Amino acid sequence: MKGAMLHGPRDIRLEDRPDPVIVEPTDAIIRLSATCVCGSDLWPYRGIENVTGPAPMGHEYVGIVEEVGSAVTSIRPGQFVIGSFFASDNTCEICRAGYQTSCVHRQPIGAIGTQAEYARIPLADGTLVATPEVPSADLIPSFLAASDVLGTGWFGAVAAEVKSGSTVAVVGDGAVGLLGVLAAAHFGAERIVISSRHPARQQLAREFGATDVIEARGDEFIAQVRDMTRGLGADCAIEAVGTRESMLQAIGSVRPGGHVGYVGVTHAELPGDRLFFSHTHLHGGPAPVRRFLPELIDLISNGTIDPGKVFDLTVPLDHVADGYRAMDERRAIKTLLTLN
Amino acid sequence: MKGAMLHGPRDIRLEDRPDPVIVEPTDAIIRLSATCVCGSDLWPYRGIENVTGPAPMGHEYVGIVEEVGSAVTSIRPGQFVIGSFFASDNTCEICRAGYQTSCVHRQPIGAIGTQAEYARIPLADGTLVATPEVPSADLIPSFLAASDVLGTGWFGAVAAEVKSGSTVAVVGDGAVGLLGVLAAAHFGAERIVISSRHPARQQLAREFGATDVIEARGDEFIAQVRDMTRGLGADCAIEAVGTRESMLQAIGSVRPGGHVGYVGVTHAELPGDRLFFSHTHLHGGPAPVRRFLPELIDLISNGTIDPGKVFDLTVPLDHVADGYRAMDERRAIKTLLTLN
Repeated sequence: MKGAMLHGPRDIRLEDRPDPVIVEPTDAIIRLSATCVCGSDLWPYRGIENVTGPAPMGHEYVGIVEEVGSAVTSIRPGQFVIGSFFASDNTCEICRAGYQTSCVHRQPIGAIGTQAEYARIPLADGTLVATPEVPSADLIPSFLAASDVLGTGWFGAVAAEVKSGSTVAVVGDGAVGLLGVLAAAHFGAERIVISSRHPARQQLAREFGATDVIEARGDEFIAQVRDMTRGLGADCAIEAVGTRESMLQAIGSVRPGGHVGYVGVTHAELPGDRLFFSHTHLHGGPAPVRRFLPELIDLISNGTIDPGKVFDLTVPLDHVADGYRAMDERRAIKTLLTLN
Repeated sequence: MKGAMLHGPRDIRLEDRPDPVIVEPTDAIIRLSATCVCGSDLWPYRGIENVTGPAPMGHEYVGIVEEVGSAVTSIRPGQFVIGSFFASDNTCEICRAGYQTSCVHRQPIGAIGTQAEYARIPLADGTLVATPEVPSADLIPSFLAASDVLGTGWFGAVAAEVKSGSTVAVVGDGAVGLLGVLAAAHFGAERIVISSRHPARQQLAREFGATDVIEARGDEFIAQVRDMTRGLGADCAIEAVGTRESMLQAIGSVRPGGHVGYVGVTHAELPGDRLFFSHTHLHGGPAPVRRFLPELIDLISNGTIDPGKVFDLTVPLDHVADGYRAMDERRAIKTLLTLN
């Protein structure tokens, strides 16, 4: 089969790779219907995270089940399935508490690489969720978004405890931040303020429910949010970048006692005194997308939400390098990779 | 009057200072019944926090109201009162949400200095809580503890969401950590594990409700807590030190989805990736002691809790320097300063 491999900074290639086979009786093999490039793929692509040797890439996926191992009971060949970027047993105490990305048996899908024609998904019963029927092509982008960026934005809003009537600051105008806006709107936020300088992203943020766009960053963003909230700060913030600056922007935007949901993979040291005196609640980490998948599948199936709009570039898997480049240069919010 | 002033690292002196007077109509003047030295006083005492010029010291206090300003309505001369280390109006939106230490009108009592015979307390109606009657001498240490360390340990347990049946790790065997143990026991924790190498502190921890004492620190503490919890980690941790090591010990002790209440004044950079992948909830900051004072006064008055046991050294205010030295050298957990 064909699959994407990262050889070094900005050197991604589509190559022949062995067809995956069932290794454990709990595995499933899926034929990808679509896959995509994640903002977090840009960390190794840019060389900010170290890559040793050619590495398979991609951890977002939807597809048709081709084959299942002998121990798989709830997933069948022919089903259209969605899974998260960590395989999970969905039965351990951590999974039952809703933290499937910290499952005691978790396995990173990124190590398998789903920017490919086929993928082996471990722990299929706990990881994959089937849609009621094989969806029409127009729904595939939205289901694919549910595999990571929608579930991650959703977790950002859940971790930020967005409620009906909340004022929410969103830091980050990538796919996750934009879908954090969508989630906050779904949870009934009254005012959703996003930090963005990019016209197309501002536009999409407004479509997803943002009420205010602030072009300024850092302290100036914080000052404007405070001006909007009688000097107190927002109730909640969703942080979807992962830098020191973005974390401080999120924390500084929130009032004492408020909540910050942080879902950008944090690549920075954070000043403990700023966290301490902010009096905020912090919660985040790798989004337990599996927790939300059944609900997200329902909301997409019945047309309540349309997260697939975050894909503003679609290229065939053969052109995966173009897809990365467009995101690296911020010409695309998110690249969908089609398969034949 | 006499009052303690810090002149430089380890140079604390009792000096003649002007008697405080009513400045604002919302002020009260109290005659201290007792005061004490806080673990956080050791940061400037040790020169870790910079001190510029002679600075008044102390922010914990109980006493008799001598005089009130013309706008004070709920506090009267002759009452025995307790207040927190930040004056607060207790009416603003932040106070009403329970974060009085971030009150929009907050004023630090530390800048006034309560290691003295008298103190001016701003925003008396919002800050001070009177006991039902002037207490007997044996209750004064417990009421004094409520002014900060008890309220701070309490907030640690509240922020850590300690519940009936919880397993709780406590990092820090100072007065705040020990009273975090007391609070966790009050909230029904089933297992309370404290990190301590100090026999007297271990003993007091057990009196307050600790079920297990671990002498090891860092990764070895974390490993032992995980061994006790089927490899998963504790439900909650109370962090009561404020260093990078103590924060990582607390975060590492807690299972994904668990809660860390951090009340040690954080003096360190924290690794964002460790926070992120821990999947824990973090909440803390300067304890909003005022939120808890009415309940704490009840629990002390009716003998349910006896937090005054944390004072293991009592010296007259005249010997304030001895009191600091004993805490600095860890010969005392907490020093109570008596007044004539």
